[in-house]
Amino acid sequence: MKQKLRIGIVGGTGYTGVELLRLLSQHPDAELVAITSRKETGMAVSDMFPSLRGRVALKFIDPEKAGLAQCDVVFFATPNAVAMTQAQALVDAGVRVIDLSADFRLQDIAEWETWYKTTHAAPKLVAEAVYGLPEVNRERIRSARIVANPGCYPTAVQLGLLPLVEAGVVDLDHLIADAKSGVSGAGRKAEVNILFSEASDNFAAYGVAGHRHWPEIRQGLARAAGKEVGLVFIPHLTPMIRGIHATLYARVSKEDDFQKLFEDRYRDEPFVDVMPPGSQPDTRSVRAANLCRVAVHRPRQHGGGSDTLVILSVIDNLVKGAAGQAIQNMNIMFGLPETTGLMQVPVVP
Amino acid sequence: MKQKLRIGIVGGTGYTGVELLRLLSQHPDAELVAITSRKETGMAVSDMFPSLRGRVALKFIDPEKAGLAQCDVVFFATPNAVAMTQAQALVDAGVRVIDLSADFRLQDIAEWETWYKTTHAAPKLVAEAVYGLPEVNRERIRSARIVANPGCYPTAVQLGLLPLVEAGVVDLDHLIADAKSGVSGAGRKAEVNILFSEASDNFAAYGVAGHRHWPEIRQGLARAAGKEVGLVFIPHLTPMIRGIHATLYARVSKEDDFQKLFEDRYRDEPFVDVMPPGSQPDTRSVRAANLCRVAVHRPRQHGGGSDTLVILSVIDNLVKGAAGQAIQNMNIMFGLPETTGLMQVPVVP
Amino acid sequence: MKQKLRIGIVGGTGYTGVELLRLLSQHPDAELVAITSRKETGMAVSDMFPSLRGRVALKFIDPEKAGLAQCDVVFFATPNAVAMTQAQALVDAGVRVIDLSADFRLQDIAEWETWYKTTHAAPKLVAEAVYGLPEVNRERIRSARIVANPGCYPTAVQLGLLPLVEAGVVDLDHLIADAKSGVSGAGRKAEVNILFSEASDNFAAYGVAGHRHWPEIRQGLARAAGKEVGLVFIPHLTPMIRGIHATLYARVSKEDDFQKLFEDRYRDEPFVDVMPPGSQPDTRSVRAANLCRVAVHRPRQHGGGSDTLVILSVIDNLVKGAAGQAIQNMNIMFGLPETTGLMQVPVVP
Amino acid sequence: MKQKLRIGIVGGTGYTGVELLRLLSQHPDAELVAITSRKETGMAVSDMFPSLRGRVALKFIDPEKAGLAQCDVVFFATPNAVAMTQAQALVDAGVRVIDLSADFRLQDIAEWETWYKTTHAAPKLVAEAVYGLPEVNRERIRSARIVANPGCYPTAVQLGLLPLVEAGVVDLDHLIADAKSGVSGAGRKAEVNILFSEASDNFAAYGVAGHRHWPEIRQGLARAAGKEVGLVFIPHLTPMIRGIHATLYARVSKEDDFQKLFEDRYRDEPFVDVMPPGSQPDTRSVRAANLCRVAVHRPRQHGGGSDTLVILSVIDNLVKGAAGQAIQNMNIMFGLPETTGLMQVPVVP
Repeated sequence: MKQKLRIGIVGGTGYTGVELLRLLSQHPDAELVAITSRKETGMAVSDMFPSLRGRVALKFIDPEKAGLAQCDVVFFATPNAVAMTQAQALVDAGVRVIDLSADFRLQDIAEWETWYKTTHAAPKLVAEAVYGLPEVNRERIRSARIVANPGCYPTAVQLGLLPLVEAGVVDLDHLIADAKSGVSGAGRKAEVNILFSEASDNFAAYGVAGHRHWPEIRQGLARAAGKEVGLVFIPHLTPMIRGIHATLYARVSKEDDFQKLFEDRYRDEPFVDVMPPGSQPDTRSVRAANLCRVAVHRPRQHGGGSDTLVILSVIDNLVKGAAGQAIQNMNIMFGLPETTGLMQVPVVP
Repeated sequence: MKQKLRIGIVGGTGYTGVELLRLLSQHPDAELVAITSRKETGMAVSDMFPSLRGRVALKFIDPEKAGLAQCDVVFFATPNAVAMTQAQALVDAGVRVIDLSADFRLQDIAEWETWYKTTHAAPKLVAEAVYGLPEVNRERIRSARIVANPGCYPTAVQLGLLPLVEAGVVDLDHLIADAKSGVSGAGRKAEVNILFSEASDNFAAYGVAGHRHWPEIRQGLARAAGKEVGLVFIPHLTPMIRGIHATLYARVSKEDDFQKLFEDRYRDEPFVDVMPPGSQPDTRSVRAANLCRVAVHRPRQHGGGSDTLVILSVIDNLVKGAAGQAIQNMNIMFGLPETTGLMQVPVVP
Repeated sequence: MKQKLRIGIVGGTGYTGVELLRLLSQHPDAELVAITSRKETGMAVSDMFPSLRGRVALKFIDPEKAGLAQCDVVFFATPNAVAMTQAQALVDAGVRVIDLSADFRLQDIAEWETWYKTTHAAPKLVAEAVYGLPEVNRERIRSARIVANPGCYPTAVQLGLLPLVEAGVVDLDHLIADAKSGVSGAGRKAEVNILFSEASDNFAAYGVAGHRHWPEIRQGLARAAGKEVGLVFIPHLTPMIRGIHATLYARVSKEDDFQKLFEDRYRDEPFVDVMPPGSQPDTRSVRAANLCRVAVHRPRQHGGGSDTLVILSVIDNLVKGAAGQAIQNMNIMFGLPETTGLMQVPVVP
Repeated sequence: MKQKLRIGIVGGTGYTGVELLRLLSQHPDAELVAITSRKETGMAVSDMFPSLRGRVALKFIDPEKAGLAQCDVVFFATPNAVAMTQAQALVDAGVRVIDLSADFRLQDIAEWETWYKTTHAAPKLVAEAVYGLPEVNRERIRSARIVANPGCYPTAVQLGLLPLVEAGVVDLDHLIADAKSGVSGAGRKAEVNILFSEASDNFAAYGVAGHRHWPEIRQGLARAAGKEVGLVFIPHLTPMIRGIHATLYARVSKEDDFQKLFEDRYRDEPFVDVMPPGSQPDTRSVRAANLCRVAVHRPRQHGGGSDTLVILSVIDNLVKGAAGQAIQNMNIMFGLPETTGLMQVPVVP
């Protein structure tokens, strides 16, 4: 019988943590052996998340006692600036690491330090880390010792723009990403602005002056373009739990069959669905599933034609935007079929 | 004692109708004398809308028997293509008409007929009708016999872009309006796509290929510009009841102090609030109130500067986007102080 | 290789239909062979429900051409009064039938006709039908030719009260069920009262004068009690998509260890979870999963003690309250392990 | 010209605080002179609540410097156990005090200390304080120096049960209040359980073992009954911002015309609306308004009759359940018409 992967999770009390638990507890090749939380040590995971009663028998354990070095793979579902202090020891012990926080996403350490307002503790590991967007880096992920799992907005925006950027068919200085996120994207933190009574029946932009996902998106697009890109990125908070809807605007610089361009680019991708022309995917069509659906439009602009493409890209921020993509990376890293444990049908309604 | 305005409402069973009733029943100079509905004739208004118990004593009445010709002003809160068949007779009888539907909004009859898919019944009255955006047409509204009350999206988008367009400081061929509306904007119609279980916890674009408010916005901006403008307009449905948030993108063609430009433009406007620099107004900050709040941003685009302005514009679609603006027009038409009956403080939370 | 069950679904355009599709498309022993809809004949199922793209390849087919008689089992996910006209022919052809509508739930035909306001077309089949609550009728379901799948409220209320009623420890004349349902319980019908803008940010009772699930619950409890029971049943609509929360009140007539009573009753039930003392299960703890969680309370009433039990019972109305329970019945009928295809972990958040 | 009332608010950063500001800023006889917050000293109120831009010019001020002793009336919108330390000094200075917290609601100091887990600092003032439910205590409120403004649940439940209790027509040992509250009832506190992603699309009971409003309700009903009452009170959290819906169950002990009983009891009450027989009031029918709507039902229980009454009672927890009722009390205390500044029409949709 095949040995199951021994899995550790560091910091499992947030939304990406509980989503990892939901998915890994149903993954046929995964064995959860430890989940750490300093604050909740000793508490049964299913006492904090009754949805996991009968499915996850673990208790939160102190990181020191978790035996993480004996795991095959450790996921970090921690706040930013935690994984960077612990990952090297695990990697040295032969454990493969998938970091769902932002610590290893930006290759430019100075830029990372500007945005995350702290000194980076592991710049060498950053250099080694592979950015875990399988649709771009599948081969490098396979052998990576440490994977930087992409942010939620960067996943939706990059998957929506990459075909255009790679093909060099749009003005790379004036890309616009108008993105809308469900509230779970802000995490399971006790903050007033994401209270039900604040965020419900309400809509607003935030981070207009600068959001940490902006340099991450620009880094990914620049790699694809082979040069710097200009991007205006405006995130908004929308009153739903899960889901990101990115509405992307790009000016055509070279005519092409853009629908076909997308279909060709993602033909073999199990988790990117290029919708038929005219589609307007809603976020619930990917709810609780590891999917990105993309639609390509060229709406009227003047009385006549248009030189502006509009790409609609939707994901579940906690799945393809976080925990699901992390497991997709794990599958790739350990030679499992990439879709293992990730074929849940979206929950509608 | 001052005589109150005698007011009739045609078609009061939708959301703009009940919002007119909410506001007019609290207006010190208004006397509701008739509200018509063919389908609900004889039903007490407060049986359909118990929120109006004790405040509106009227019953829905058949239009033929409503004595509308004896009113000072008649509001049409009807589906499109109704007002155009009834307004002329009222105008001829000396009644002033405010149409909240789309019948008199587009001066180009051919374009109207394309978008609304029917023959226009009153093209001559269209020529006479004044577009009821007080911030643009206050003087003409004063003496208008018939006012075309603007659409909800057109109100939010025009108020957000007009200062730039009028000043000629942005590229008029590539304006982008990414707009998000609460579900009440779709009306009180029994349709599957706006059911709670469809629209809740969900987000999607719609009308990407073409929305009826697109020509209306372009008409308004073209008037201000003195020439055609190019506009990509993408509306989205967001899971809240009231509110529109327009995120507007315009490329700078001529440098200026854009914050000051907006402040100067709206200094004397009682219902447009230019927010301080850095603000990100949320829709609830105007909930149930006749207000548009606008914020001016110029976010980073490349590593360095930016040539793209981002304007955030929020309204309550049922108030400044419909019934409130209609009453503002009424106040202007009858020489009342413009804010009469419209000073409700937004409902937060 | 084991032969898969050949499955037909009659009426698959509502919420119980799409939920059957979600679950059956992931069921290892199920093969969807036909799904019928007169109105949508020829339309791909995944065009109506893009969440099923790549997972359900069927098109809606006219019932006449569906070859339902060649199926092993047919689910009716139709409005009431449809299955009663079609089930007999299928049963005669050797097809086993699971009806998710109300047609076969009430054994008293006269009572059924009173509540459903039509003449019953198949009273003989009613007599044969087995009420598909596995926790009560497992053995009879095994060999049933036709199963009447319980209503959503009746599932939550009966599972919460049965241990008390069977044990004869509460006053059977004065049971109270105060139940709250998400809006999907009202179906995917174009009706004004379940529009987002009506049902969101709102809460109300409905059906206080009489709800069709009241006789169904009373029938089930009377069977368990061996005599008529008195029940006040007040359903409410709450602004969420999925979920039922029943708060049940029963006066103690005979002291017992009530927590233990529940634990003993449901010890071997795979889909009923008796929570630890003091628990207050939330509906999301069963979201999208085939589970009923129950908690037993005896709160203060006077300064001192209390003679009133309060039972909290939660289900997902579309899963344990409809499609999931139907598949549980199918598993039982065909000798499959009862949990096959039904072990999804609830989706939280 | 009439002198306006000089008003101070202690602790204005929560939901009852901002609701007081919304209502008082529109009250014709009120002049806001000070609003205190230690934490936010110096911040403009309208910076925290942009909905108040242009309507409230005050800044939060340190309590020591607020000059509260010069006010005519001071509202406490503070957490529990604050007003009890500050009210005596104000009362001594001739300022009339309306406390929206729980400090002066329970006459039994020992019971208060049990529920609020602290020593009461002002038991003498408790003895003097008048419970501010105008429908019960109007005359005593008129001359009160200090008013204990009722809790939200206690307002809805008492107004729903008082006519029955006062008339002595129901079993007083077995009253049941199944109450559902919008999330704003939990306050504007940074707590995980009321985050949008926790409370949205979810429903649960809480405080089943004991809620602080239980002794308050029992005290009020006992006063009306002239003896102790037995009450099971189960509160629930429902995913909406504002609103309480209480579903009340009482067993008839003496036959009467219960509809008439309610109509007679509340005939002269400006803010209690007894609905016609058969009504099922929804919470939005009182949204943002100072109203309680009540409906009386006697649903079937057995096949035949019923001995159980079901009363439905709805309020906006922030208005009739808090700030609105406080202003109603202020109007009474200062001899103003009771409805002054409180006639807003509910906001629907």
